[in-house]
Amino acid sequence: MVKKKFDFDVTIPVLGRPNVQTPLRNPRYVDESVPMPLILTSEELTELDTDILKKKFEKAGPREKLYFDPSKTKCAIVTCGGLCPGLNDVIRSIVMEAHYHYGIRTVLGITNGLRGFIPEYGYEVRELNPDNVSHIHQFGGTILASSRGRQDSEAIVDSLERMNINILFVIGGDGSMRAAKSIVDEVSRRKRKIAVIGIPKTIDNDINFITRSFGFDTAVEKATEAIQCAHVEATGVDNGIGIVKLMGREAGFIAAHASLALQEVNFVLVPEHKFTIDGEGGLLQAVEKRLRARNHAIIVCAEGAGQDLTGGDLLRDSSGNPKLGDICGLIVNRLKEHCKVQNLEMNIKFIDPSYIIRSVPANAGDRVYCGFLGQNAVHAAMAGKTGMVVTQLKSSMVHLPLDLVTVKRRNINIHSDYWSSVMEATGQRQYMD
Amino acid sequence: MVKKKFDFDVTIPVLGRPNVQTPLRNPRYVDESVPMPLILTSEELTELDTDILKKKFEKAGPREKLYFDPSKTKCAIVTCGGLCPGLNDVIRSIVMEAHYHYGIRTVLGITNGLRGFIPEYGYEVRELNPDNVSHIHQFGGTILASSRGRQDSEAIVDSLERMNINILFVIGGDGSMRAAKSIVDEVSRRKRKIAVIGIPKTIDNDINFITRSFGFDTAVEKATEAIQCAHVEATGVDNGIGIVKLMGREAGFIAAHASLALQEVNFVLVPEHKFTIDGEGGLLQAVEKRLRARNHAIIVCAEGAGQDLTGGDLLRDSSGNPKLGDICGLIVNRLKEHCKVQNLEMNIKFIDPSYIIRSVPANAGDRVYCGFLGQNAVHAAMAGKTGMVVTQLKSSMVHLPLDLVTVKRRNINIHSDYWSSVMEATGQRQYMD
Amino acid sequence: MVKKKFDFDVTIPVLGRPNVQTPLRNPRYVDESVPMPLILTSEELTELDTDILKKKFEKAGPREKLYFDPSKTKCAIVTCGGLCPGLNDVIRSIVMEAHYHYGIRTVLGITNGLRGFIPEYGYEVRELNPDNVSHIHQFGGTILASSRGRQDSEAIVDSLERMNINILFVIGGDGSMRAAKSIVDEVSRRKRKIAVIGIPKTIDNDINFITRSFGFDTAVEKATEAIQCAHVEATGVDNGIGIVKLMGREAGFIAAHASLALQEVNFVLVPEHKFTIDGEGGLLQAVEKRLRARNHAIIVCAEGAGQDLTGGDLLRDSSGNPKLGDICGLIVNRLKEHCKVQNLEMNIKFIDPSYIIRSVPANAGDRVYCGFLGQNAVHAAMAGKTGMVVTQLKSSMVHLPLDLVTVKRRNINIHSDYWSSVMEATGQRQYMD
Amino acid sequence: MVKKKFDFDVTIPVLGRPNVQTPLRNPRYVDESVPMPLILTSEELTELDTDILKKKFEKAGPREKLYFDPSKTKCAIVTCGGLCPGLNDVIRSIVMEAHYHYGIRTVLGITNGLRGFIPEYGYEVRELNPDNVSHIHQFGGTILASSRGRQDSEAIVDSLERMNINILFVIGGDGSMRAAKSIVDEVSRRKRKIAVIGIPKTIDNDINFITRSFGFDTAVEKATEAIQCAHVEATGVDNGIGIVKLMGREAGFIAAHASLALQEVNFVLVPEHKFTIDGEGGLLQAVEKRLRARNHAIIVCAEGAGQDLTGGDLLRDSSGNPKLGDICGLIVNRLKEHCKVQNLEMNIKFIDPSYIIRSVPANAGDRVYCGFLGQNAVHAAMAGKTGMVVTQLKSSMVHLPLDLVTVKRRNINIHSDYWSSVMEATGQRQYMD
Repeated sequence: MVKKKFDFDVTIPVLGRPNVQTPLRNPRYVDESVPMPLILTSEELTELDTDILKKKFEKAGPREKLYFDPSKTKCAIVTCGGLCPGLNDVIRSIVMEAHYHYGIRTVLGITNGLRGFIPEYGYEVRELNPDNVSHIHQFGGTILASSRGRQDSEAIVDSLERMNINILFVIGGDGSMRAAKSIVDEVSRRKRKIAVIGIPKTIDNDINFITRSFGFDTAVEKATEAIQCAHVEATGVDNGIGIVKLMGREAGFIAAHASLALQEVNFVLVPEHKFTIDGEGGLLQAVEKRLRARNHAIIVCAEGAGQDLTGGDLLRDSSGNPKLGDICGLIVNRLKEHCKVQNLEMNIKFIDPSYIIRSVPANAGDRVYCGFLGQNAVHAAMAGKTGMVVTQLKSSMVHLPLDLVTVKRRNINIHSDYWSSVMEATGQRQYMD
Repeated sequence: MVKKKFDFDVTIPVLGRPNVQTPLRNPRYVDESVPMPLILTSEELTELDTDILKKKFEKAGPREKLYFDPSKTKCAIVTCGGLCPGLNDVIRSIVMEAHYHYGIRTVLGITNGLRGFIPEYGYEVRELNPDNVSHIHQFGGTILASSRGRQDSEAIVDSLERMNINILFVIGGDGSMRAAKSIVDEVSRRKRKIAVIGIPKTIDNDINFITRSFGFDTAVEKATEAIQCAHVEATGVDNGIGIVKLMGREAGFIAAHASLALQEVNFVLVPEHKFTIDGEGGLLQAVEKRLRARNHAIIVCAEGAGQDLTGGDLLRDSSGNPKLGDICGLIVNRLKEHCKVQNLEMNIKFIDPSYIIRSVPANAGDRVYCGFLGQNAVHAAMAGKTGMVVTQLKSSMVHLPLDLVTVKRRNINIHSDYWSSVMEATGQRQYMD
Repeated sequence: MVKKKFDFDVTIPVLGRPNVQTPLRNPRYVDESVPMPLILTSEELTELDTDILKKKFEKAGPREKLYFDPSKTKCAIVTCGGLCPGLNDVIRSIVMEAHYHYGIRTVLGITNGLRGFIPEYGYEVRELNPDNVSHIHQFGGTILASSRGRQDSEAIVDSLERMNINILFVIGGDGSMRAAKSIVDEVSRRKRKIAVIGIPKTIDNDINFITRSFGFDTAVEKATEAIQCAHVEATGVDNGIGIVKLMGREAGFIAAHASLALQEVNFVLVPEHKFTIDGEGGLLQAVEKRLRARNHAIIVCAEGAGQDLTGGDLLRDSSGNPKLGDICGLIVNRLKEHCKVQNLEMNIKFIDPSYIIRSVPANAGDRVYCGFLGQNAVHAAMAGKTGMVVTQLKSSMVHLPLDLVTVKRRNINIHSDYWSSVMEATGQRQYMD
Repeated sequence: MVKKKFDFDVTIPVLGRPNVQTPLRNPRYVDESVPMPLILTSEELTELDTDILKKKFEKAGPREKLYFDPSKTKCAIVTCGGLCPGLNDVIRSIVMEAHYHYGIRTVLGITNGLRGFIPEYGYEVRELNPDNVSHIHQFGGTILASSRGRQDSEAIVDSLERMNINILFVIGGDGSMRAAKSIVDEVSRRKRKIAVIGIPKTIDNDINFITRSFGFDTAVEKATEAIQCAHVEATGVDNGIGIVKLMGREAGFIAAHASLALQEVNFVLVPEHKFTIDGEGGLLQAVEKRLRARNHAIIVCAEGAGQDLTGGDLLRDSSGNPKLGDICGLIVNRLKEHCKVQNLEMNIKFIDPSYIIRSVPANAGDRVYCGFLGQNAVHAAMAGKTGMVVTQLKSSMVHLPLDLVTVKRRNINIHSDYWSSVMEATGQRQYMD
């Protein structure tokens, strides 16, 4: 466990002094910054100075005084990047909270992600209300559609001004949180009073400081279903190998967690943990040993694993994310060759359930969480907070500055108890180390 | 609708005269061949002479007199070919019926398909009893494992004799039913008294005369879940295209039926219905038109569709099935090229849920059916029938000779009401005809 | 098997001569009554004269000539009685077919069942279109809401005339089909040209001649989940008894079919099969024997079973259905008493999943069927047919006159192979006969 | 928020000095008590002195030195009380950890709960091994069966001695943790070296200090399915009321959490929050207002809610738990009366899904957690710990003394943000306060 010095600020920017009386009836107000020394576990502390022990995070929740007058407030919601279970739940929660609790009359849905702000694309803006969002939590995806890639902040703020929007909720990943920060900066440059609140979305669970991202539980649940199928296939023939590709460009949380859930996985490969293909301790020999011992093998592979082996090129997609080399294709081919040479007849079944995992509705646990995120995003915005995200840290809902969550990506600490449990569950160390 | 002359025999071979009293208590016996003029619909009549109107199929069910003495009977079960929901239900039903109703003491499970009979492979034979099969219907796959490809009939019959097996239940597809027929012929050549009963398994629903194959309903159910995900993905971006590959080497029933079930599919491509890629009425222009009109498109493609377009090579896999060209890969690539040329930005998401569809447990409807198949297979065998399969024809359980079901493959009649309804559901004719 | 003389007419009433050209593009027309001698199995023949062998049912499907001019046609849909999986699918299918294939501009949704026609209730009428029905198949229940009980036919026809409705689709059970018949009679008395088409809905599967009712498969699937839970509970304690109440006022099809599907049920009790509580062969002793032999027992009981034992009173509910005595309550109490007297410690867990079974969305198989029902209902109405229902008979979609389906209720023939299989699956005869 | 003085000890008892070398290969050892100041949120702090801020809990995990020699260690597992999703996962995890990681040869399954130790009952003891537990996580319930009520500690320890058991794992609720404590005391009195480790099981989530109990997530997921059905039923008729009874004798966590997840619940009734039936602000008028405003209402009621209204008698069941009055029956009857008097026609559908919720297999999230619980229970026992439970506190796995978790029950703090969010989600304050 390596601890790096990492200094950070947890102060949340505000648009001005709140002095409008809230219309909420009898809530428990959180009207001042509550001291909340959060203790992180060793896993979470890797990149943090122990100074964090003295930090006081701002607690999320309703404030007694508001910055915006609800009767005059206009909100907008935009969903960015790839799909993730729970997007519609967050949209619904924001609309319901704004409408029923604050009495806000207008919530606009910007369609097709940040492109929806750019007039040239000509996308419509949809009016959202309790009626047209009441059932959307039962569908996967996002009713607003999405897009990847960045758009010009000036053009976005032009749009916000043109539509007289006071509050913008940006639901998106790491890149979108950076985009949100640029919008905040542009708004600030123009000295406008527009609040920008982020709701971090990352099915890979890889946003810094976001220890729980919505949709992750659901994704793991669906991933285990696919692994279960791989297990049935692998045990349904002699020397069957099931290989399941899961999401995880830089962080293998879904692969790791699903391996813990099903306990049928023999090899889990993640970006954080380098492995070799050839030679003693390499994957090929390891799988061969496993087949000879037990007649079947289940491999779960995060899409970003083994990029040093694929010669992952450095091309970038339209979101600026590096394009990944096809590690599963490589493994499948090399295993076939290897087993042929070793005269070991085997059957490989490759399953890629990624789009199925991303596009289902959220499960109950994620729904509860999405509800909290939406509610608290509205509370924060109405109090005049901006440049921040809402998230759960430990068991509390808090505000974090956008700067903090975008400073780096989160990934598995392979020296942690967590990874140790994963290795224990797969038993792969007996073959590969 | 073309009607061809097709003469066929529905007589079931018998090993000898049944004269052992059944141990069954108070069943409804089916002790003689019941006249049962079955009327098939026009779809099913395509390849049949109307002489079928006069045919009398043999009804399945318990017989009062048995050929085998239950106390001395030894059965074996083997599962062959690819996975299909319900395999374990059929195994369980046979074991339960043999044990509880006939008091048969030994049911052996041959492992790894027909290879399990070949000593060189060295596979174990498992004793099956109510205890070790009681929960297996809750798992997908087959507890006996399977293999593809044929094995020498003489070697198989040597094994049957060595193990003193009286009844062999073969659960498998078209190829396995042919293998069963060879075993029957070899048994007959040796003048042995071994009954061989087939239970036809075909997730593609493509065995001749088998109007309902077990696992098909479940497969369609799971296929619709994947299509639903493709729909969520396609509508989650601007100009999204979801393309779902489904099973169906020569018959597109799963693709067609899932399209009827979900009613979100815009193009369904099956082996029976030729289509073109280029030009007016071709798939590329059709999809382009759909995108320009509705901003998203869902394509469902059976794996065996458009083989004239892929130049599907004539290599054969180990089961002797032709290897298919990659039609989905072709479509994805051509669509990308086409849209680039047409300057139409779009997003393709390709989903291949095949292994997930095959390996789930059977749904309730299929479970009921698998129960009937297992029960009636035991009834038939005990009465000394052989060289036959059990199946449902219309709403009756009947016996069909192996010769009949292997004479040709079944597929979609594209001149039928059924296909007409599929075309109505997708609406693709407005773009492609 | 008793065969009664039962003469019936299969002629479908028509409003007049169709002479409008259909707007459908290239369908397979069914322009004349197609001879279709349907052979029913012995189970289905119980109440029918063998004259049925000579009957020619009218085939469902698109007609080349229409009676109504699509551009001037106004349709209405009403859903009546209790919930059943698939109601929304039928509504959706009718709307889609009317809109996309016939170009009909107006489809009205009458809300709250037949009450929706009665002005005093003041219920709104909703305009249905592809947009507002496109997702409804993903929800259980009916978007139109429903009500029980009959309403005055004259008032209903007054409403139909006032709204200028040309075609009424009535989705409902036995009672609603009778109500539909009264509406047809009243329309006829007034010499109006209003087509009334029934789509029979019966989760109990008990409408005469309707061998497959939509939602039944889904109901059985959900019922097996509840039985599975009862099994887990019963085996989770010593001498555990799981008792599951299922729908089935006069017909025990759900109970019987679910018992076949799960094969864990030890006693299935249905209205068609009388049983005794006390004495040798009675339920109490039977359960006791089972507990002493196997330590747990699963009882599945249709709500209408054993009404001679409950002294089921003859009060009627608002739909005119007899109110049932609480057979499960009786069994639970008597079992507790009996086991106390016998000094047999036991644990009863009673599960009533009825509302959960009724209110889920339809599964894929039912969705396909609901699609066919809606499409063909529209085809029939547009051709000027009336006083009829669409249904599947064997594997064909046909028209049946309302008179035929309401003449009596369908139930399980306890002398059939079907019931014999159920008894074989439960094994209850060894304890109770 | 009331803070009471509550002093407690977090020291874990040990059987003696560990000095056997662990057979584990390369784990991250936790060989000393790690300082871990845990900060609880205001909800969790209600009954605790702030002294807790200075407490150091013992971290769970593998120890380098063991107290027991694995090659000579004999373990036993017993499951007690009502069913809960995940029981089989915990059993499986213990067996797998003991077998594969420590090389322990014998793990016994005591059947039928603590009764399994009492010779008079004559229950068998089952040998558990990786083969016979490998699939059990796919089933609900417990393969060992369970029973309620206490048994004599002396008799239990007699049994432990007779079977030469070194480690006993007790999976059970509040009462079972007390029983475990008595066993520890008796073992200590006899100066035996038997470790007793508790794994707290409480579907109600009401064990003190156990902020997350296994199976709770799954229970909430299933509860939402039942509520969804109630919603479909309630909106499927005019003035429909859906009332769902959920588990929760003294703590309404399942009801509260499911209400947050589905956001369709209008009234949630829990034991912690008193309510009135009659008069202004009472439930009857509240529901009436809701019906008049919105035409349907969904009530979710924990079984232990409103016991002051039912005159809940003080009879005790065999586990010593108070028997609850039938609050749902009371509400149903009073609502019927009230609406009759108010001349408001309505339809009540009552759903009790309790046994369905309890008896399903655990979802992926709970499976991961059960895996951690089992692994760490074995680690603790092998190190010679006793009289303790393993659990997650915040995001860390820790050891807590049995004394601490049994000192009182946990329930919802109705002055917390959590309950405030629940009230916000239901909106019931506008009708009932």
